Amino acid sequence: MRQPEAIGLEQRLADLEGKVRAMEDQLAIYQLLARYGPSVDSRSETSTASMWSADGIYDFGETPLRGNLAIGGLVNSEPHVSYVAKGSAHVMSMPLVLLDGESAVATGYSRLYVHREDDWKVERASANRWELAKTEDGWKVLNRQNRMLDGSSGGRELLSQGIGEG
Amino acid sequence: MRQPEAIGLEQRLADLEGKVRAMEDQLAIYQLLARYGPSVDSRSETSTASMWSADGIYDFGETPLRGNLAIGGLVNSEPHVSYVAKGSAHVMSMPLVLLDGESAVATGYSRLYVHREDDWKVERASANRWELAKTEDGWKVLNRQNRMLDGSSGGRELLSQGIGEG
Amino acid sequence: MRQPEAIGLEQRLADLEGKVRAMEDQLAIYQLLARYGPSVDSRSETSTASMWSADGIYDFGETPLRGNLAIGGLVNSEPHVSYVAKGSAHVMSMPLVLLDGESAVATGYSRLYVHREDDWKVERASANRWELAKTEDGWKVLNRQNRMLDGSSGGRELLSQGIGEG
Repeated sequence: MRQPEAIGLEQRLADLEGKVRAMEDQLAIYQLLARYGPSVDSRSETSTASMWSADGIYDFGETPLRGNLAIGGLVNSEPHVSYVAKGSAHVMSMPLVLLDGESAVATGYSRLYVHREDDWKVERASANRWELAKTEDGWKVLNRQNRMLDGSSGGRELLSQGIGEG
Repeated sequence: MRQPEAIGLEQRLADLEGKVRAMEDQLAIYQLLARYGPSVDSRSETSTASMWSADGIYDFGETPLRGNLAIGGLVNSEPHVSYVAKGSAHVMSMPLVLLDGESAVATGYSRLYVHREDDWKVERASANRWELAKTEDGWKVLNRQNRMLDGSSGGRELLSQGIGEG
Repeated sequence: MRQPEAIGLEQRLADLEGKVRAMEDQLAIYQLLARYGPSVDSRSETSTASMWSADGIYDFGETPLRGNLAIGGLVNSEPHVSYVAKGSAHVMSMPLVLLDGESAVATGYSRLYVHREDDWKVERASANRWELAKTEDGWKVLNRQNRMLDGSSGGRELLSQGIGEG
């Protein structure tokens, strides 16, 4: 027969394991998003592509890009190449993460700063919705939706969804 | 009599439980602050109000707003409504969090970017001190103090307090 | 003889201890970097110096500063004093952290916003590589390398290193 102490310990251990798993997931998602800027501003096609699942989507308001290899290829297309040549910083905010088992949604902001003569221009400020899945290779992006916060409704809608409304 | 192994395990488990609780608190505070921008930029009164305790305070340098419902109402007042209509991003930095049991202080920066013809204007850059408490409904804001970093002393004082000086 | 249950618990506990240690390290590194802005924008020499090891380095592209006291002294030198007088915000992005036992590298962005008549100017946007070590006094900076993202290659190289390339 198992001892009462051991049974109590096992339950506490199982509780901790669940909490630790959730925190590891949240931190892994922070790390995944922190990889985006350094990948695209150094024009690393491989590192950029590695963030998405093989059939992942990048939906920035026009025809979405499909497939992580196509998305990685963005770093070699205009206007990205020109931004990097001038000096660019694609910076993500600390996102709001809603975890649901092996799925998650992260909502936050991206800003693109581009160097010009005497300062950096805020070339874009956007709302982002990252739909994510935990795979054998860690957390991957299934779909990144990005809408500029330029007064049109798309950006506000992504933010609204992210806080559990709309 | 309890076995030496079980006693050792219990102590290690109790240590882990304390560490996990502190990390959960820190991550919950990150998440609370990450909710602010998406709430106000989508003009969600409910989500904004939910961040504060019922008698919470938002002190932005003039007469402080008192009560989470009044604070939520900010999203329907000027100049906020105009900022959102133009396209706005209220972005929090990753804060410095000092935990003290069920209380905490988070210190960091906020920036407000507002869209204009060809770029986004940095309309405000501010120091923030968030005084927080852990309640039955999770971490809530008791008082957010916000001072623009415009050369006046208020912002520097908030930052100074946040690092344990001043 | 130890019981099978106890042995299983011990292994699970040891696994958790390792995971918790890694997460504590990551969060401690976030906190260390979150201290930078509030320290320099409030011109706290002590808090700034406390971030580096005694023989730590700050390499910003010219002759590197050596020693944490020299680095702390930056807050009393130009152009820093003028920036703070006008109103300044040194903001770090959420970094990409690569942990390796008691060492770590954190890669991310810094931006310096300086107040001017009607807005804040983005005075600098830079790539940062923080080489860190866990000491008896917590995580400390051994070397911060900082390169402006102005189209020169230095910044892109730091970002490239940070994602495990270059």
